[in-house]
Amino acid sequence: MHHSATKTDFDRVAETIRSLGFKPVVMPGAERTAIGVLGNQGPVDTAPFQDLPGVLDLIRVTKPYKLVSRDFHPANSIIRLGKGIRIGGRSPFLLMAGPCAVESPGQMLKTARFLKKLGVPVIRAGAYKPRTSPHSFQGMREEGVRILAEAGRETGLLTVTEVMSPDQVDMVAREIDILQIGTRNMQNFDLLREAGRSGKPVLLKRGLSATMEEWLASAEYIMLEGNEKVILCERGIRTFETATRNTADLAIIPLVKSVSHLPVIFDPSHATGIRALVPSMSLASVLAGANGLMIEVHPDPEHATSDGPQSLHFKEFRELNRKLQTLIGFAKTKRLL
Amino acid sequence: MHHSATKTDFDRVAETIRSLGFKPVVMPGAERTAIGVLGNQGPVDTAPFQDLPGVLDLIRVTKPYKLVSRDFHPANSIIRLGKGIRIGGRSPFLLMAGPCAVESPGQMLKTARFLKKLGVPVIRAGAYKPRTSPHSFQGMREEGVRILAEAGRETGLLTVTEVMSPDQVDMVAREIDILQIGTRNMQNFDLLREAGRSGKPVLLKRGLSATMEEWLASAEYIMLEGNEKVILCERGIRTFETATRNTADLAIIPLVKSVSHLPVIFDPSHATGIRALVPSMSLASVLAGANGLMIEVHPDPEHATSDGPQSLHFKEFRELNRKLQTLIGFAKTKRLL
Amino acid sequence: MHHSATKTDFDRVAETIRSLGFKPVVMPGAERTAIGVLGNQGPVDTAPFQDLPGVLDLIRVTKPYKLVSRDFHPANSIIRLGKGIRIGGRSPFLLMAGPCAVESPGQMLKTARFLKKLGVPVIRAGAYKPRTSPHSFQGMREEGVRILAEAGRETGLLTVTEVMSPDQVDMVAREIDILQIGTRNMQNFDLLREAGRSGKPVLLKRGLSATMEEWLASAEYIMLEGNEKVILCERGIRTFETATRNTADLAIIPLVKSVSHLPVIFDPSHATGIRALVPSMSLASVLAGANGLMIEVHPDPEHATSDGPQSLHFKEFRELNRKLQTLIGFAKTKRLL
Amino acid sequence: MHHSATKTDFDRVAETIRSLGFKPVVMPGAERTAIGVLGNQGPVDTAPFQDLPGVLDLIRVTKPYKLVSRDFHPANSIIRLGKGIRIGGRSPFLLMAGPCAVESPGQMLKTARFLKKLGVPVIRAGAYKPRTSPHSFQGMREEGVRILAEAGRETGLLTVTEVMSPDQVDMVAREIDILQIGTRNMQNFDLLREAGRSGKPVLLKRGLSATMEEWLASAEYIMLEGNEKVILCERGIRTFETATRNTADLAIIPLVKSVSHLPVIFDPSHATGIRALVPSMSLASVLAGANGLMIEVHPDPEHATSDGPQSLHFKEFRELNRKLQTLIGFAKTKRLL
Repeated sequence: MHHSATKTDFDRVAETIRSLGFKPVVMPGAERTAIGVLGNQGPVDTAPFQDLPGVLDLIRVTKPYKLVSRDFHPANSIIRLGKGIRIGGRSPFLLMAGPCAVESPGQMLKTARFLKKLGVPVIRAGAYKPRTSPHSFQGMREEGVRILAEAGRETGLLTVTEVMSPDQVDMVAREIDILQIGTRNMQNFDLLREAGRSGKPVLLKRGLSATMEEWLASAEYIMLEGNEKVILCERGIRTFETATRNTADLAIIPLVKSVSHLPVIFDPSHATGIRALVPSMSLASVLAGANGLMIEVHPDPEHATSDGPQSLHFKEFRELNRKLQTLIGFAKTKRLL
Repeated sequence: MHHSATKTDFDRVAETIRSLGFKPVVMPGAERTAIGVLGNQGPVDTAPFQDLPGVLDLIRVTKPYKLVSRDFHPANSIIRLGKGIRIGGRSPFLLMAGPCAVESPGQMLKTARFLKKLGVPVIRAGAYKPRTSPHSFQGMREEGVRILAEAGRETGLLTVTEVMSPDQVDMVAREIDILQIGTRNMQNFDLLREAGRSGKPVLLKRGLSATMEEWLASAEYIMLEGNEKVILCERGIRTFETATRNTADLAIIPLVKSVSHLPVIFDPSHATGIRALVPSMSLASVLAGANGLMIEVHPDPEHATSDGPQSLHFKEFRELNRKLQTLIGFAKTKRLL
Repeated sequence: MHHSATKTDFDRVAETIRSLGFKPVVMPGAERTAIGVLGNQGPVDTAPFQDLPGVLDLIRVTKPYKLVSRDFHPANSIIRLGKGIRIGGRSPFLLMAGPCAVESPGQMLKTARFLKKLGVPVIRAGAYKPRTSPHSFQGMREEGVRILAEAGRETGLLTVTEVMSPDQVDMVAREIDILQIGTRNMQNFDLLREAGRSGKPVLLKRGLSATMEEWLASAEYIMLEGNEKVILCERGIRTFETATRNTADLAIIPLVKSVSHLPVIFDPSHATGIRALVPSMSLASVLAGANGLMIEVHPDPEHATSDGPQSLHFKEFRELNRKLQTLIGFAKTKRLL
Repeated sequence: MHHSATKTDFDRVAETIRSLGFKPVVMPGAERTAIGVLGNQGPVDTAPFQDLPGVLDLIRVTKPYKLVSRDFHPANSIIRLGKGIRIGGRSPFLLMAGPCAVESPGQMLKTARFLKKLGVPVIRAGAYKPRTSPHSFQGMREEGVRILAEAGRETGLLTVTEVMSPDQVDMVAREIDILQIGTRNMQNFDLLREAGRSGKPVLLKRGLSATMEEWLASAEYIMLEGNEKVILCERGIRTFETATRNTADLAIIPLVKSVSHLPVIFDPSHATGIRALVPSMSLASVLAGANGLMIEVHPDPEHATSDGPQSLHFKEFRELNRKLQTLIGFAKTKRLL
């Protein structure tokens, strides 16, 4: 719409969209406001709109997503996560860290205090664990959620944990600050919708073999519920190479950021599966343009219930954190990004 | 356990398993009965079992599955689907066919009558449609389930449809004969468990990028709920090749059948995405050892709401069915399989 | 060109093509003759041709190949291999078999006599072996070529072996009937050209991660040297699945055959890497439309210098051959293909 | 061998290796000297060596490579490229840049002078171009080699270009400083051997779908000819993702460097195929531990004969170079690597 478009202009466009059986979505931006047409199966006839007052341009969108696209929302999204912490745009680079799984209150509290001291604002840990085999440890479930939440309250950290099923969303959303959708559930559409409806920030991991387009279309499911707080997370894709657990697709980070206004973080632990590769890949992701990192760290990786070989020791994490802070400050000052 | 093992022998073994904190599962077979140890995270100490009476052998299983394995269940599983129809072992080759999506009662009834006349015993159609984009047609949902069920009742066909979320299982299980788990949900573990608990036959599609081992481990989730009626379905995997929608992995069929006792069917429509390839690949799968086929057929593919390009016209399906019946009879007579 | 086009018409078109800096290639067909424009980097201006007498149609070809395409050569190619053996179109299904590598005169003669007795017309064996590691057996090279050739002469079988380098082509072409280009050399363009120039039939294996389009473009390199005797061979592609050595892409066979006039065979030994899968996948490939098979068989697979686990024993091959002959005859009679 | 091992000790070990039919290779290192056993097909009996004087340890190597491994050569290799330029270990980060293809003397000289002014020590350009289609531009071949060499002489830059066939090696090695083996030829073993024999530094690109192990085994072919000047180049791998031309596998860089002593560089142009992604991925690779970069830059990318969309404009390259120098200096000072 034109800068000068009036409320009457907007209403008429919205009405016309509805009269064709579709749903109008108003998308305000810094410079101009767009109106999206949702619900159409194919091309929409542009004729009814061409001469409506206030209409500046008609953009045909053939992508499986609209709301996540920069076409409709040119400025970077900035997402408020709580306790003054934000991600996206020029917000500070955001670190999330913690063990793969919640194992005990002691383990969580120890980790939370360690992170707090380093200034890491978000603690992660899995309560519901999606495991390939039903014979593997399935997580502490509800109890794990409460232990994580308690560690967060005790230390003032924000918390993030995975939800695996729509019926877990309510309970987790009451206790935890950020909902994570895991790689295996990237196309669990009912879960996406339910997470969207919760209104909580949603961290959406890329599917094991998801194209960029499918990933963004999944983010669209969340946004379509009116929830604009979506954080994308690259965590490696499945390829023929077995030397690493997955193949870290760092180049997708700047590409997603050119296409979408959403923030993107990187998970070097799952992307590589090898502890020794986590530091260098974390640093590399800063320059690839990531808005943050999610890193596995454990007080005793050798005895972790899962993902021990890819979890950092506290000492290693402290050293990595030092390097990250040094690099981030420098990259900002020198305009490397 | 030995042939000659007594009930007391069995009980003692089961008790010993429980005393170690694990769960015993009795798996009767034609020749001998095995007792599985479930719930262990790693190797189990074999010492407590070595001298128990009735114990024949201690088999270490390192695979992420046990119940689906031939090690514990050497004979082919034969699954009763209802109305006298079976699949697995020496049961007749089983055809399932129908449109991608339920679109209307007329479309379903027309298709059902067509299949009935050809002797195809199972009709398929999607009511809940997992679509990459939220802006695409999402299926007729509950109404679609009822339309499909009604077409089944009217013609005496068995019905199969996809469930996408645990909370759909109850309703669908009441109306439909076979529950399908789609490729995107192969690792939606709560859904697998819920489908397992329904007691209904479950058709488990292979995930887009699932290894054979992961696929079988997902089947294990269903069987672990006490549901032995699992049918595996190869539907193509994601590779670098884009000339076909997916890459049909026919070789996995004989490989799965050597490892597992479960029946395996093939879906040539999704595996190729190209109508013209469906007939030859269907015939090929018979000799690869498939126990059946699931084929997309539509009264009017050019106007289908989804997957039109890979759906057969009635005439094409009739011709393919003729070839299939000819081939199957011959292959059996000549012991080609 | 029109049916009625005269030699003068043809000459004028050819001259016009040359005047634009390109190369005309006359491609005669059963119904009409086409003239291809080769050497252009992008779209060619059609104006100079529009009004030339005899010109029927101007077809824009954006594919990376022309000569291999059905657009220019609608009828199936039939390739004469020598000794009355042909492949392609309605020629008999063609079996090629033999060990992975030439190991000794005794091994080759034993195998050749075995195949001869079964009526298999072509023996294969590697003399130059492309091995991942330089520390592995590299083949008997020139000596191996001579041993294979001698076994062929002794038994009257046709021979096929791999050439790895342009400078091997001359010698191999003098001794052997069919030159094989291996999967690792599918884009060794100088080798393709040299094999093309030899005038010998060339069996072109699909590259480990080659798309159909790239594979056909490589065949084009051979045909562009004036050699029309190209046989394509699907031998499995590299994917994330490691349960089989490669993923057999059977669906590519009917797809290639719809796009190209060249014959396509299947190599179930490399496609699966597992002896037990070879029989069923061989039979399946017949119905997928393959024109032949290349199968590894060895007098003593347990002591083979390479690929033992995927080589059939003589007894297994004899049984597979029986099934293949039975199936092929039936498929032809019943018009299953 | 022990530090204190004498020449007699070495000779006796070498003799014993030969007596078993294998080839001894002496590999001197900073701290101790190892003797490799080459040519064995499987495990070698260790008994004959156990009691030989001077023998410190017997290491079983099951990898398809030995010479490239850190097991035998723990210290980083430093490769002298000529004109005082080195790569590897603590040598300065090395930039190579230039157009995809040699197009004309003017284009090369313009590029060479531009690079010289910026302090970039190596110019790249393709003379022999491996193209999927025989109908695409195949490069200026011999003439291109001479044009590149002349530009190098004129400006004092080192030169690098691809060789596609063994018979090109001699001529190219006389004119050019570094031989490049392209991704399609990573397993063109005769070419690897010939490049090895040339004694020139060899830049070995990773194959399109090569595992790390296969890549290192190809490097072993070169080293086995006595040529220790091998530079590895990660240039993206083929995956299901088509949003980028290839998938940049940055994590393989630190992994290769932990396994091998050879230097590794990164080619962001081919890895992404998108100009806009080249700067951020170049910077990221510095922190992933790359020893250098090979970047496509062209005076007029819009009119390049190939790879225009992934080539930087001069202005973009200048800006990237500034950022790279800034980052490299900082990373060294702050010990980020």
